[in-house]
Amino acid sequence: MSYTNHYVKFIKRPESRPTEDVFEMAQENISELKSGEFLLKNVYLSLDPAMVGRMREESNYADSVEVGGVMHCYGIGQVIESKNPKVSKGELRMGQLNMQEYTLSNNPEDSSKINVGLADPTWYLSVTGITGMTAYFAMRDICQPKSGETIVISAGASSVGMIAAQLAKKAGCRVVAIVSTDEKAEGLRGGGIYDDAVSYRNKDTDTLTADLTLACPGGVDMYFDNTSGDISEALLDLYNDYSRIAVIGRLGISHLPDTRKDVGRRDNNVILAKRISKQGMVLLDYKSQYPEAIIQLSGMVHRKEIRFEEDMMHGIEKMPTAFFRVLDGKNKGKQLVKVGDINSYDDPSPVKIGQSIRSKKWLNGFVVNALRSTRTVKSLLPMRA
Amino acid sequence: MSYTNHYVKFIKRPESRPTEDVFEMAQENISELKSGEFLLKNVYLSLDPAMVGRMREESNYADSVEVGGVMHCYGIGQVIESKNPKVSKGELRMGQLNMQEYTLSNNPEDSSKINVGLADPTWYLSVTGITGMTAYFAMRDICQPKSGETIVISAGASSVGMIAAQLAKKAGCRVVAIVSTDEKAEGLRGGGIYDDAVSYRNKDTDTLTADLTLACPGGVDMYFDNTSGDISEALLDLYNDYSRIAVIGRLGISHLPDTRKDVGRRDNNVILAKRISKQGMVLLDYKSQYPEAIIQLSGMVHRKEIRFEEDMMHGIEKMPTAFFRVLDGKNKGKQLVKVGDINSYDDPSPVKIGQSIRSKKWLNGFVVNALRSTRTVKSLLPMRA
Repeated sequence: MSYTNHYVKFIKRPESRPTEDVFEMAQENISELKSGEFLLKNVYLSLDPAMVGRMREESNYADSVEVGGVMHCYGIGQVIESKNPKVSKGELRMGQLNMQEYTLSNNPEDSSKINVGLADPTWYLSVTGITGMTAYFAMRDICQPKSGETIVISAGASSVGMIAAQLAKKAGCRVVAIVSTDEKAEGLRGGGIYDDAVSYRNKDTDTLTADLTLACPGGVDMYFDNTSGDISEALLDLYNDYSRIAVIGRLGISHLPDTRKDVGRRDNNVILAKRISKQGMVLLDYKSQYPEAIIQLSGMVHRKEIRFEEDMMHGIEKMPTAFFRVLDGKNKGKQLVKVGDINSYDDPSPVKIGQSIRSKKWLNGFVVNALRSTRTVKSLLPMRA
Repeated sequence: MSYTNHYVKFIKRPESRPTEDVFEMAQENISELKSGEFLLKNVYLSLDPAMVGRMREESNYADSVEVGGVMHCYGIGQVIESKNPKVSKGELRMGQLNMQEYTLSNNPEDSSKINVGLADPTWYLSVTGITGMTAYFAMRDICQPKSGETIVISAGASSVGMIAAQLAKKAGCRVVAIVSTDEKAEGLRGGGIYDDAVSYRNKDTDTLTADLTLACPGGVDMYFDNTSGDISEALLDLYNDYSRIAVIGRLGISHLPDTRKDVGRRDNNVILAKRISKQGMVLLDYKSQYPEAIIQLSGMVHRKEIRFEEDMMHGIEKMPTAFFRVLDGKNKGKQLVKVGDINSYDDPSPVKIGQSIRSKKWLNGFVVNALRSTRTVKSLLPMRA
């Protein structure tokens, strides 16, 4: 069979903050699969701030997108044809599927089977996916929240920020957001998740520091840093001894043509005097622990301990618009684009096993410990590392 | 009895890098001790770069020295009179004794008894003291060297740098120093400790980066940062994934009137992309673990696994000169000043217990593990936390 694949082409590297002319809609035909290949019909595509980093040539933790190639993104798709013995028709898979309607692949390692019994398909791109798992591992390993401590979360209204905030709240912390506008800050204040919120737009660093000082009367013990840059500089004099900084994102320096041009006050003096630890975190390093995070986060959502929003657009041609919504912080919840439909009847995954693991009857702590030590159990699970 | 105490008075806060007029020699009389007080006759005083931080008013991990007061420093002294039941005449003690010939104290917690059976008295200020223990804990907990990795050590010829270098070498690492001058770099290259050395004076950041790139062909996995500032910025593009940065010192920004004026390229982008962890370290936080470090380091010196130098001056009036020698990096080894003599016959400490613990017959690993878990053993040991 032959398919027309509409896709978003990346046509030039941005000189500073990306503008709309970096993208162009394009199409191609996909016909006969070669031996070893399988074809995914994409269903949900995910928009993430980290995509800006991929537009740059400079060294990074992820590959840069090639000029003239399909723009990168993560997504969920369903296998509609397979000439690979390891991949079955009907499977739902998640991975770097890129901004397109169909993804042709010959490497099953590039994506992972998901189980919709454990979590809804879109969750694998939001609360149990990139954003939720990023929050989960950063809180577990870097921030290590303790009851009574204060955490500041920049890009606090982002989907990763909202989940990090709820995990910290669950641990008994005071949770303070940094967001772009007063309107956003006001919205978060009444939302029941954040204890306070501070806006940064049109404020110099000293003013932002003053506002944060009021919002954090006991100082700051943890910083979940989604932005870097001037916004993060505003926290430097607020840290308590032994604070932990998780460096997750760079939204606040995405306007720079070259991140080496991120100049400002350096933090070594504070890091030393306050014995702070600051650590960069990239989700890909946690692949072997994804199952633990998915089970834990899915359980929390089902028990209504954490909530999240998804901001869904429709159609592949909406991808550039959705991308700039994220860059401008206009999305309400995790930004997704639906580009196709799932054929539920074709999904061969053992949905009931997922549902059993999720159920309250399972001792989650036990399961999670088992996951850490055995490989057998992993084969039951959604995302194979 | 009455004593004339000559001391170094701190008379004004420096506006940028300290100059000689911040000090003045002075004297006072110490006569009758009150109940609870004890008097130390100081023997060895220690010069450390961290003293610059104490001259500033800004928040720090240690107290600032008061204008008009005795300038701070660490030292070893012998108790010559005691009206405190917890302190015996003749005891050798180490602590913040300050730049003076006699130290009057009413708090035994401010200093700790040392045992010269375990380590020579001056070692408690050098290889088993502040510098050696700083290197020991930073390597053990932050750098965590693995065989085949590369470490860069700034202020590489400093006493802490030299010990850190040898601990890394013992772990099988390539060890590269950053020092001020070509002459110093040349000296270190032939010294058998460093694999290579690079000078920074009169070099812009790009040139220093280029020189470091040549000295670290496999990139950098650890940075023992004694300087901060521009020198540290030169390493930013050399880090490998998962590098560890121990922030130990600020010699490279000691010329700044206010460390908030330390501006330059910020490191968040590199910290994130390379998943680096950077951590500030202050020795005082390790008090309860000093005995472990002293036994381990003393053993290494006795087994000739590490070597160190001491640069000794004589007389309290040499303290300012010695201070600027350290600031200018002119000292050859740990800078000390001898201001008195020990009366060995008066020392009541159980020297033989120290010698037994040090001897090869003891299973050091066992002792160290025991130290970690029991308080009884600690009472035999030199520095009580």
